[in-house]
Amino acid sequence: MSVEQAGFDALAFRRTLGLFTTGVTIITACGQDGERVGVTANSFSSVSLDPPLVLWSLAKSARSLDAFTNAEYFTIHILSAGQEDLSNRFASRGEDKFSGIDVTDGFGGSPLISGCCARMQCRTVHQYEGGDHIIFVGEVVDLVSSDAAPLVFQAGKYALASRKADAPPFVTSTATEFKDDFLGYLLWRAYFQFAAELRKEGAISDYSDDEFLLLVTLAHNNWRSPGGIAKAMFHGDAEEDTQEALAGLEAKGLLERMTGADGVELVGLNRNGMDSALAALAAAKSTEAVFLDKLGLWDGAALKNLLRGFIVETDPGLPHPWERQDNEAEPLRTSV
Amino acid sequence: MSVEQAGFDALAFRRTLGLFTTGVTIITACGQDGERVGVTANSFSSVSLDPPLVLWSLAKSARSLDAFTNAEYFTIHILSAGQEDLSNRFASRGEDKFSGIDVTDGFGGSPLISGCCARMQCRTVHQYEGGDHIIFVGEVVDLVSSDAAPLVFQAGKYALASRKADAPPFVTSTATEFKDDFLGYLLWRAYFQFAAELRKEGAISDYSDDEFLLLVTLAHNNWRSPGGIAKAMFHGDAEEDTQEALAGLEAKGLLERMTGADGVELVGLNRNGMDSALAALAAAKSTEAVFLDKLGLWDGAALKNLLRGFIVETDPGLPHPWERQDNEAEPLRTSV
Repeated sequence: MSVEQAGFDALAFRRTLGLFTTGVTIITACGQDGERVGVTANSFSSVSLDPPLVLWSLAKSARSLDAFTNAEYFTIHILSAGQEDLSNRFASRGEDKFSGIDVTDGFGGSPLISGCCARMQCRTVHQYEGGDHIIFVGEVVDLVSSDAAPLVFQAGKYALASRKADAPPFVTSTATEFKDDFLGYLLWRAYFQFAAELRKEGAISDYSDDEFLLLVTLAHNNWRSPGGIAKAMFHGDAEEDTQEALAGLEAKGLLERMTGADGVELVGLNRNGMDSALAALAAAKSTEAVFLDKLGLWDGAALKNLLRGFIVETDPGLPHPWERQDNEAEPLRTSV
Repeated sequence: MSVEQAGFDALAFRRTLGLFTTGVTIITACGQDGERVGVTANSFSSVSLDPPLVLWSLAKSARSLDAFTNAEYFTIHILSAGQEDLSNRFASRGEDKFSGIDVTDGFGGSPLISGCCARMQCRTVHQYEGGDHIIFVGEVVDLVSSDAAPLVFQAGKYALASRKADAPPFVTSTATEFKDDFLGYLLWRAYFQFAAELRKEGAISDYSDDEFLLLVTLAHNNWRSPGGIAKAMFHGDAEEDTQEALAGLEAKGLLERMTGADGVELVGLNRNGMDSALAALAAAKSTEAVFLDKLGLWDGAALKNLLRGFIVETDPGLPHPWERQDNEAEPLRTSV
């Protein structure tokens, strides 16, 4: 029965298949003429534990069909999250997919790509009829794996997976209660816990929140106007907070004021200030590392990814603290 | 070649297979004796578009093997994120997997389970040899899908997938810069953007941040001691902030004070206060809905899931605002 004869169309079928989340693989082999072939596939599946068998399917229309059907061995690369570009390259019909990629030769000359989550070299043991595809079943003869986060494909898009939390993730709070399930609370509490830990770091605990933010801001972009900083730090009452933070860092001997081009007042960290900022940044990085480790590196990457997406999707155009504002004169070159 | 003869052991092979992320399916059929069978499997894979073929593998040792090998039809259910319990149930060897589950009969009497991401009824067209498994290839004859988020399985654990953000997720900032990639910044900025949007809601914009938090806190747990509230709201200088917020709500005619058991001072929302709190909560929910919609519901669920996991993993034991503190006397019954 063709797709048309069934009660659904090809698009609906593709969309439904896309609801089954998968990893992404690149499968390579060496053709009889020595030509290296490779395709991106998400039709990989485990089959048997003993003997160790896996399978994948290749379109009968694929240019590499002859090479794969004649090859004694093929290699399955489970891609890592950083290999999206590689996935796109091997999903295209380009002539020279291996150009510029560092590969070594595996069993039967099948090209081995590095940087993957896992790599399984297989001996072809069955080729089965599968409609417009051939199903290749291979016996795994060699495997290596890494601790890189896997690349994921879902509903036609690249994705990252994160462990489901033990707490039920879909508690629906009532219309008038939000407690633990309200996004605003979750964001606030997560930030609060992170900040509370950060404040324990010796290199940070001497500063007020605003002083720390100012220190970091100036470490990224020194010698700025107080007005520009106030805008960039985007508090409700940023001017007053900014002046207080400036006075605080000045009293600690970390900040100096100068007159820039056009007589604009500029503030900047002096050498002591820059040293203190670098120490504070290093301490912040160390707190971050502890938190990411608690969460697990894969989930840490997924959380950062989601927060970045969230920020981009919902950004009302707020400035970033370290960006120089339009109203800020460029500072004169200084020798700090 | 057995697993033992290969240069790796069965555990290493299983672990490597686990690095290929998958969805989770339950596959059902009706045995010749009319017995309903069903198993959890993540060995599902798409095969062919035209004709529409899919496959999955079943252990030769499975109790349901006879039923599946003799059945003309089987049904693949792609599970949704809320169906973790169902997945566990059908992964076990229990006798009565369908007990208490609402099913209807599909082609060949194969049981159809509801609440899934997608469901594909298939006619068995091939049964292929696959080591200790049989590979079933089915032609899809009917499909339905929903917009529920799919359940994901990765490295032996249930997971949720979220779209990779367009911005590269693995930018490694240098030791002394953190900019957009620092977790603390991402959390702060995400919360800040959410809060900024929240402040625009008419039912919320009249209150200071602390007044809003106090209003919500009391809506969840009315008539509490100022000292207990100050502890629960866990600011650096909570006592002072709490008194200011209490005075603010009192001036707006929303809050009253009374003396409770043992002469303890209690504060609580009056009827006006409770009405205002409900309006504020409804407005907050509406902002949340807009944000979740911008992010997409699946990613919204994944973000909440990750934040909840993050909060649990890194909680230093801070109180929740709405939890009554140990030092707080239970209020007398009131008739607000």
